[in-house]
Amino acid sequence: MSLVVIGTVAFDALETPFGKTDKIVGGAATYIGLSASYSVKPVKIVAVVGDDFPQSDILRLQEHGVDTEGLQIKAGEKSFFWSGKYSNDLNSRETLVTELNVLADFDPVLPDSYQDCKYLMLGNLSPQVQRLVIQRLVNRPKLIVMDTMNFWMDIALEELKTTIEMVDVLSINDEEARQLSGQHSLVKAAKLIMAMGPKYLIIKKGEHGALLFHKNQIFFAPALPLEEVFDPTGAGDTFAGGFIGHLAATDDISFENMKRAVIHGSAMASFCVEKFGTERLLNLTTAEIEAREQQFAELVAVQPLEAVAQS
Amino acid sequence: MSLVVIGTVAFDALETPFGKTDKIVGGAATYIGLSASYSVKPVKIVAVVGDDFPQSDILRLQEHGVDTEGLQIKAGEKSFFWSGKYSNDLNSRETLVTELNVLADFDPVLPDSYQDCKYLMLGNLSPQVQRLVIQRLVNRPKLIVMDTMNFWMDIALEELKTTIEMVDVLSINDEEARQLSGQHSLVKAAKLIMAMGPKYLIIKKGEHGALLFHKNQIFFAPALPLEEVFDPTGAGDTFAGGFIGHLAATDDISFENMKRAVIHGSAMASFCVEKFGTERLLNLTTAEIEAREQQFAELVAVQPLEAVAQS
Repeated sequence: MSLVVIGTVAFDALETPFGKTDKIVGGAATYIGLSASYSVKPVKIVAVVGDDFPQSDILRLQEHGVDTEGLQIKAGEKSFFWSGKYSNDLNSRETLVTELNVLADFDPVLPDSYQDCKYLMLGNLSPQVQRLVIQRLVNRPKLIVMDTMNFWMDIALEELKTTIEMVDVLSINDEEARQLSGQHSLVKAAKLIMAMGPKYLIIKKGEHGALLFHKNQIFFAPALPLEEVFDPTGAGDTFAGGFIGHLAATDDISFENMKRAVIHGSAMASFCVEKFGTERLLNLTTAEIEAREQQFAELVAVQPLEAVAQS
Repeated sequence: MSLVVIGTVAFDALETPFGKTDKIVGGAATYIGLSASYSVKPVKIVAVVGDDFPQSDILRLQEHGVDTEGLQIKAGEKSFFWSGKYSNDLNSRETLVTELNVLADFDPVLPDSYQDCKYLMLGNLSPQVQRLVIQRLVNRPKLIVMDTMNFWMDIALEELKTTIEMVDVLSINDEEARQLSGQHSLVKAAKLIMAMGPKYLIIKKGEHGALLFHKNQIFFAPALPLEEVFDPTGAGDTFAGGFIGHLAATDDISFENMKRAVIHGSAMASFCVEKFGTERLLNLTTAEIEAREQQFAELVAVQPLEAVAQS
């Protein structure tokens, strides 16, 4: 049950109210790969970097069970770089620098060893590139999960819709769900988006949790109320990695198991934001993850309601 | 186990993206009283109106089990009137008109028959008036729940803190919790606010649910994702009425039962927003309320997590 992940492997420079970083390793495929690696190994990534990307960081990914055979290293080119600054309440961020570099003409080549792909995670990238990966797999994976963002809704909506139509699960945030559907009500938005193709829709609401929709069913997973959120970068990718990692590890795509996958993804994301970049994702233990999932369960746990209305 | 509620009984004129109303009956004590009446009767209200307030509306409250002995009717004066207009996404509202009228010099007189008060709900009013009610009760109630709003933080912070110190449960929204504590993190805000006196804190997050804090415990109740929110007016008061109504009916103020009270309050609030004003609260059935509570339970229901991490 091979898990293939496509996305960016890149440099980020981050500034939050709590500090700033120089160029550190980031990118959707990095966060997704590390997060999923706690559930299943290997995680086969498809990505591209320049030869400025340190070999030591590639080795670190490999040590975590990330298969980098599909990671192209472009000689004489530079890796994708993004720099951003978060607002004081961390609820918004400003892009300071975007240098596409190797990403400008990324052609996602799939090694033969990736053709056993059963679970495919399309991290945020241009919808054309995401679609190419689906097309280059000889057999359609059992489950395709897609992440995207408002940027593609702004500049490539029709391309985006063509790709969305091909996937099983779409994962976006609340504002993106509203933009994509033109509906403010998330319930109405979900119906319209599922009518575009995906059988499942995850709407991420950041500090307010996540909703999972399937047909007429809705599941809600809270976010853990955290004393400190240090750096939100990569939280959505880490969530996605935890989500598909859990599904690939259990090889069970029932709605009930998707609920567990959402909680596992939420737990992984709650670790991610505790430190800058991928730092917190590099050394988690199984016990820590299970304890965090237990906290999620306790947060909403309540004994059955008694009848409270009097006649 | 008498339940006493203080708050406004008033006229509202509302405008939402879905329509507008003429003057209709509103006010915190009205919403709280109606909502609580589905759990416990009578609900003894302390409030003031002018002689412009229709006798038929007072009778309607009485029919729902609201005891109006503490409702003062001021001859020759007019009732409190508020008019507001909601933004298209219903997330913000603009006050068009505020006429204090009888509220300007409201002296909350408690009938002798209210002295058996065991549960006291202080609906949103000036903190001085809220405090007077506590002081005029011969015996301290078993539980005092207080609702307030940012308005009093802006103009009467010290008075507000003096009253907050005297109550058991404070119910405010997330922005108010941040304003009152000066902390963005709701976990940190909750600790600081509980240090001001209340042993329990409810932070209402509107469409994102509600948090209940007590010592180091946190409970989260989601809001039901609704296809249509028609009019948010009174949702917070309806929540508070459901919350204290459940506690009074069960006479159990354990943390576990407070969780159930939060869910019951959330369910009542989810009805409130379905129609203009109090309309939806006038004719609910026990079966409808129980079915709605069941929806809340199902929204977060998940089978126990399996160990998902692999070593």
